[in-house]
Amino acid sequence: MFKSVVLPVALLGVAAAAGADEGQWQPHQLPQLKSELKRIGITIPAERLADLTKHPMSAIVATPGCSASFVSPDGLVVTNHHCGYGAIQRNSTPEHNYIANGFLAKTRAEELPGGPNTVVYVTEKVEDVTDRVLKGLAPGLSGKDRHEQVEARIKALIAECESDKAYRCSVPAFNRGGSYYRIKQLLIRDVRLVYAPANSVGDFGGDIDNYEFPRHVGDFSFLRAYVGRDGRPADPSPDNVPYQSKSFLVVSAEGLKAGDPILLAGYPGRTSRYKLPAEIRFARDVDYPAKVASITADLSVIAAATMGNPDYTVRYASVSKSLNNVLKKTRGLQDGFARKDIAAIKDAQDAQFRAWYKQHGTGSKNLLGDLDAAIAADMATTQQETAWAEATHSDLLRSARTLYRLALEQQKPDAQREAGYQDRDVSFIKARLTRLEQSFVPSVDQARWQAALVRYGKIDAKARPQGLDALLPAQNALAPLYKGTELGDTAKRLAWIGKDADAFRKSNDPFIQLAVRLHDTGMALEERRKEVDGNLERVVPQYMDAVIAWKKSQGKPVYPDANGTLRVTYGTVAPYSPRDGIVKGPFTTVEGILEKQTGKPPFDAPHALLQAIRDKRYGQFKDPVLGTVPVNFLSSADTTGGNSGSAVMNKRGELVGLNFDSTYESITKDWYFDPVITRAIHVDIRYMLWLMKEVDHADNLLKEMTIKYPKG
Amino acid sequence: MFKSVVLPVALLGVAAAAGADEGQWQPHQLPQLKSELKRIGITIPAERLADLTKHPMSAIVATPGCSASFVSPDGLVVTNHHCGYGAIQRNSTPEHNYIANGFLAKTRAEELPGGPNTVVYVTEKVEDVTDRVLKGLAPGLSGKDRHEQVEARIKALIAECESDKAYRCSVPAFNRGGSYYRIKQLLIRDVRLVYAPANSVGDFGGDIDNYEFPRHVGDFSFLRAYVGRDGRPADPSPDNVPYQSKSFLVVSAEGLKAGDPILLAGYPGRTSRYKLPAEIRFARDVDYPAKVASITADLSVIAAATMGNPDYTVRYASVSKSLNNVLKKTRGLQDGFARKDIAAIKDAQDAQFRAWYKQHGTGSKNLLGDLDAAIAADMATTQQETAWAEATHSDLLRSARTLYRLALEQQKPDAQREAGYQDRDVSFIKARLTRLEQSFVPSVDQARWQAALVRYGKIDAKARPQGLDALLPAQNALAPLYKGTELGDTAKRLAWIGKDADAFRKSNDPFIQLAVRLHDTGMALEERRKEVDGNLERVVPQYMDAVIAWKKSQGKPVYPDANGTLRVTYGTVAPYSPRDGIVKGPFTTVEGILEKQTGKPPFDAPHALLQAIRDKRYGQFKDPVLGTVPVNFLSSADTTGGNSGSAVMNKRGELVGLNFDSTYESITKDWYFDPVITRAIHVDIRYMLWLMKEVDHADNLLKEMTIKYPKG
Repeated sequence: MFKSVVLPVALLGVAAAAGADEGQWQPHQLPQLKSELKRIGITIPAERLADLTKHPMSAIVATPGCSASFVSPDGLVVTNHHCGYGAIQRNSTPEHNYIANGFLAKTRAEELPGGPNTVVYVTEKVEDVTDRVLKGLAPGLSGKDRHEQVEARIKALIAECESDKAYRCSVPAFNRGGSYYRIKQLLIRDVRLVYAPANSVGDFGGDIDNYEFPRHVGDFSFLRAYVGRDGRPADPSPDNVPYQSKSFLVVSAEGLKAGDPILLAGYPGRTSRYKLPAEIRFARDVDYPAKVASITADLSVIAAATMGNPDYTVRYASVSKSLNNVLKKTRGLQDGFARKDIAAIKDAQDAQFRAWYKQHGTGSKNLLGDLDAAIAADMATTQQETAWAEATHSDLLRSARTLYRLALEQQKPDAQREAGYQDRDVSFIKARLTRLEQSFVPSVDQARWQAALVRYGKIDAKARPQGLDALLPAQNALAPLYKGTELGDTAKRLAWIGKDADAFRKSNDPFIQLAVRLHDTGMALEERRKEVDGNLERVVPQYMDAVIAWKKSQGKPVYPDANGTLRVTYGTVAPYSPRDGIVKGPFTTVEGILEKQTGKPPFDAPHALLQAIRDKRYGQFKDPVLGTVPVNFLSSADTTGGNSGSAVMNKRGELVGLNFDSTYESITKDWYFDPVITRAIHVDIRYMLWLMKEVDHADNLLKEMTIKYPKG
Repeated sequence: MFKSVVLPVALLGVAAAAGADEGQWQPHQLPQLKSELKRIGITIPAERLADLTKHPMSAIVATPGCSASFVSPDGLVVTNHHCGYGAIQRNSTPEHNYIANGFLAKTRAEELPGGPNTVVYVTEKVEDVTDRVLKGLAPGLSGKDRHEQVEARIKALIAECESDKAYRCSVPAFNRGGSYYRIKQLLIRDVRLVYAPANSVGDFGGDIDNYEFPRHVGDFSFLRAYVGRDGRPADPSPDNVPYQSKSFLVVSAEGLKAGDPILLAGYPGRTSRYKLPAEIRFARDVDYPAKVASITADLSVIAAATMGNPDYTVRYASVSKSLNNVLKKTRGLQDGFARKDIAAIKDAQDAQFRAWYKQHGTGSKNLLGDLDAAIAADMATTQQETAWAEATHSDLLRSARTLYRLALEQQKPDAQREAGYQDRDVSFIKARLTRLEQSFVPSVDQARWQAALVRYGKIDAKARPQGLDALLPAQNALAPLYKGTELGDTAKRLAWIGKDADAFRKSNDPFIQLAVRLHDTGMALEERRKEVDGNLERVVPQYMDAVIAWKKSQGKPVYPDANGTLRVTYGTVAPYSPRDGIVKGPFTTVEGILEKQTGKPPFDAPHALLQAIRDKRYGQFKDPVLGTVPVNFLSSADTTGGNSGSAVMNKRGELVGLNFDSTYESITKDWYFDPVITRAIHVDIRYMLWLMKEVDHADNLLKEMTIKYPKG
């Protein structure tokens, strides 16, 4: 008669060991962590995980901003629902609303084109090119010159790598510029939508539950990678064939329980774990408060300017959504800093390091002083950039500036152009300028810019870029600019691509005129940034080398900050206590969907799903401990943005879930990984398989994948 | 470096057995529950718990609206802070602010008088008087006549018992009138304040945390009972001596852990566990929505009428606080009914019962029909009473009506007067009419009444007492009444006590005039209530007898609804899951105080307390599992209002905590005890002892009590 409830029957004081599950490791580092992996129970050999050409790592891929993995020999890719959203949205019409109703291709012929932004990157080679980037730089270079020389070398390395057009290459800095690796990725550009559950499953709880736990989201979708008949990437075509990846992940429906080890592989975006206390204080005390104030104001301007006009509201929906997401994240950072004095923790670590460096440091005597100076210059420049961003906060102005800059860069040979304005970038620029039409209304843009100019006016004069004030229109004189411009028209906007700089200078379009007028000031700020970055790039790597030596002296390997490259992290399935007297997780169950269901978005799961839960049709996906189907679970793995869709694997490297979010209390992990409170949120593979079986009847995909079911 | 955190390392699906810890048992019933008590691990014999003259039950006492217990041979009483609040408040002055700073008498001479409302009731005898109340009532009596005859017999039983002036007696109905017991209580009227922590400890979290968990409240205070040198209750006097109780509770600092059994003894106020589905639906669909609407409106009228006037705000602070408390409770009931369809559960039980009764019932064939009719009449009358309450929602009018009624009753011999207007009641009436001055402002009273009259005007005409409309002043014509009355003056108000009815009839005071004018209509409603109650009293006991027989046929004992008499309940220390993916409790710890501390009320614990926590001065009160001092904990015991201050005892009957609240999700337990979700909240005795030792230095009391400390 009473619902069974999961209760902790034994409570133990567990002192979490510092640094337990911290680390977003480059695959080649994993052999150093052998004993650690063994300790938590990972049985797949560390050497195996270091080999990108072998299972399982060759199955781990990236999509733009997300991670994913191959789950069949025929190019079937699984990632998050929010990562496949663009492909779903693109194919949705009022008649076939795949966002609302979900989509399932019962045959390959029914699979739908994902569109130009739906691509798959397969990392094939990671090569240490530190020497080629850094060796032989003249010692006396100015910051700007050094930065430009480094950039030129990187561009050459990329060009060399991209001579094979099937690849997209990059040379990101690791350890804040201490080393550089060239990443060679196969770019598969014909990727189709295979299966996605309804939005009310894939985004159950929506913005309300974003960053929260308990969570009940079926945040997954399936895509398929297609290539030409020669096996090489090709433009989308009905003639293409499914890509045969080097390996794919076996799926395990055997399930995990609290305390079980997990591996997580994907493409984390950006972390700041090695920043100095001064940088944390700047973020906490200057940058975040400014950001929160600015976004909050911007959001209310958008709300006011779109009110009562459903078309306007729709156009700015995704803008508001992403601003709200940044706002929630920034507030989470502020709350986290208020909860735990991370700056003080970093102070203590920094003091230890400085004391060690004094005794054992082999680098320059002035290193620490140079470092502090470079960081101070960085913070001052960041403030100017913030002011600049407020002053130029208009989508039309941004478009005009991009176009003029492109014209100027195109006067140079391709290799000498600024990164982002080379021939390889033009198609992306075009796509961006086209996409604007979906999220732009002149009157709203004007209102946002006007409010931003008011905010700019309140910024301390010393923090504004020199000479900028005189170039800006008065905040109440924007109307003529919008009346006089043709840039709001997509075709006319795009028509500027390829025109020469002189055409811009002679134009009567007020936004083009303003872009031309602002150019020198913008460039001065950009050069200042290069100077600052060049100095950082000179000093910070020395600092990082010293930090690595210091850590090494304590027997600790150092992982580089996340930079969008392939990483492996590990941890255990673990609950956490957000505050005294409460324990969350590690699992949620399908019954929690019934609890949250209101029938109104975002808590409006489909009827068939609700009925399957009410009928207790758990099938093979019932967890023996929970007595029902798990939905989401927590682990202590070290993740960040970009890890969305990352494969969560069991000790044998079998797929047991997909990463999709972190808890609110974990947000500060970008600065400091606190093992007590940091938890990543995953979709349990059993929920996915159960949905596919009991609700959406995706039997074709269940058959295509290799699934290990629990015994008995 | 990292704070240790309590995590559930083993999770098990525990199917809570239906009815596991349900039951507020009369002590004499406990021997029937022997095997149940043994099963959960209680070692103190059930027969022992049935004997009110022996330890531990002779140590369990009542204070007005609360429960308490003796903890030393010299009359030392422990109860909640909020139960001792009147005594603390009474002694507080701007110079000696014992509310803010707490109070500790280091010697008996320093103990402070608790005032007339601070009394202790010791239950000495509980006697089944069902026959003397019910036997030989003529079968054909009208409801009203039956009710009055029962009342008269009860009054006689009380008068007989109170012939010894040391006692206060009562004859409450049990099992909805199926049986009556005479309760004989020693009334100790010299009770002094001994020790209370600061309000910021005793009410840490205040209204924000009310009904919530995790909780961090030191909700306790110590009083001392004094009697005359002859050992009998006496008026307060410096000559009095500490009362030597028959027994007192030994205190155990050995601590409990999750799963341990507990006993809880006290005076639960009122529950409605045996109400019928129709009664639940009436509460859910009619009564609670009306109550929420009325209180919400009343609160905003008070807020508006007191705004900007600090004196007015203070006067209505406790009125608003208690309205808010009722509102939160009523909303909790509504939320609970929304979460779980208790009416449907009761429907199923009711259907089973009716089917059983058809086959096995030995009572009247018409019983179930009569029952439904009596309940329908009750609900209709309740609606009229609600309308009447709105129409007369003025403190001044209420005072005038009490005074006129007293004059009318005093025309009769004492034994024939209505209960509440006998000689034994006059001092209480006087106290109430005096106390009004602390929480009354004419303009606020007028605004509240006016708004209530507007609400009354919107009530369906059929639900209003007949003829009432014509007697009421117009809602916009109240000003002259307030201008013309002298009842706002306390002395003039009290001067009406003892005046004869004729003086009222001749009075020019508009409130007195209105009270006289409303009298007949009020009496008609009261007589209707008596008729309804009389019919209920005839039918419901037959129904309850049948229910008891039905339960007996299933081998289940039946406990009566709470009615303010001494009860024992038992359970285990247990966490609960308020929703999927979250587990709360069972313990909170002192570190949680640091987490909640903001420095602003109600989260402003004293510096000395915070420092002791930061210094980890846990002393002997550190829990071996938690690694720190526990503050509050949860158990599955069955409690309700009135159980505040109840002794929470371990399996040996030693004091391990004080009950003080329930979780929000438990509020519906007054209707239906759901063992999965229902939890009572207790102060852990170790927190109390730790505070006394490390923060408040109450060594004299620690010495006076008999405390068992953990070994080693």
